Amino acid sequence: MSKYQKIMLAVDLTEESLKVAERATQLVNAFDAELHVVHVIEPLSLAYGGDVPMDLSTVQEQIQDQAAAHLQEFSATLNVPETHQHLIFGRPESEIQRTAEEAGADIIVVGSHGRHGLALLLGSTANGVLHGASCDVLAVRVGHDDSEST
Amino acid sequence: MSKYQKIMLAVDLTEESLKVAERATQLVNAFDAELHVVHVIEPLSLAYGGDVPMDLSTVQEQIQDQAAAHLQEFSATLNVPETHQHLIFGRPESEIQRTAEEAGADIIVVGSHGRHGLALLLGSTANGVLHGASCDVLAVRVGHDDSEST
Repeated sequence: MSKYQKIMLAVDLTEESLKVAERATQLVNAFDAELHVVHVIEPLSLAYGGDVPMDLSTVQEQIQDQAAAHLQEFSATLNVPETHQHLIFGRPESEIQRTAEEAGADIIVVGSHGRHGLALLLGSTANGVLHGASCDVLAVRVGHDDSEST
Repeated sequence: MSKYQKIMLAVDLTEESLKVAERATQLVNAFDAELHVVHVIEPLSLAYGGDVPMDLSTVQEQIQDQAAAHLQEFSATLNVPETHQHLIFGRPESEIQRTAEEAGADIIVVGSHGRHGLALLLGSTANGVLHGASCDVLAVRVGHDDSEST
């Protein structure tokens, strides 16, 4: 079994992404691997169940512009070139998997809140990514012990 | 953030454990980390829902003896000393988490079949370990593309 050669870092571009990126960077350095970054924008119509009472296209555009700028800035701090930055629309879980597959990544690194109880029913991206992923998945624990407070 | 120092390898002692162990070993070598191995035996009464029509204690003892021998043999091939071998009774998900916490592990490495669809409803150990884990979880993809056949 060869070592990890291509690492797909999936981020939601919140503050927690820094911690997840740090783990990914440790793997990159340890295995001399190539780093890719993916950020998925969930279309508002998807997030609201497809039944939106107003035209959200302007809001959606603003979200997209902001995300693009933010992803570029974030990637720059990690020395990830533009060709390895992936800004995608769709459902985070499946799009992260698809992007990883297309890039030929052998591991996806994603943040996890370690939710359980009620929060578990609401699902989590880490959890969704794990199901059906065709490569390894590293769930990096982030956040403040949600698991103990729920 | 410090690098991984203590790695908890969770195995079901099937053939697939070799692949998961290989990934764990790569991390151990890359980060000069300490390796622990945990195997959880699920009590037959738990597996059968607690309503067993016969005395299974003899069968349970045989399972335990076999597992103990198998874990020892498996650990030896990885140069894991006895003090770092953990043979536990209970529900795999919670016992793997508990053992990792007690040992102070900063990452759990566990095999994952990447199930989805119907198999997903049945749950998987990797999935269960991810929920509520207090440390990182590396799910190593094993098996023959179950995700595409279901």
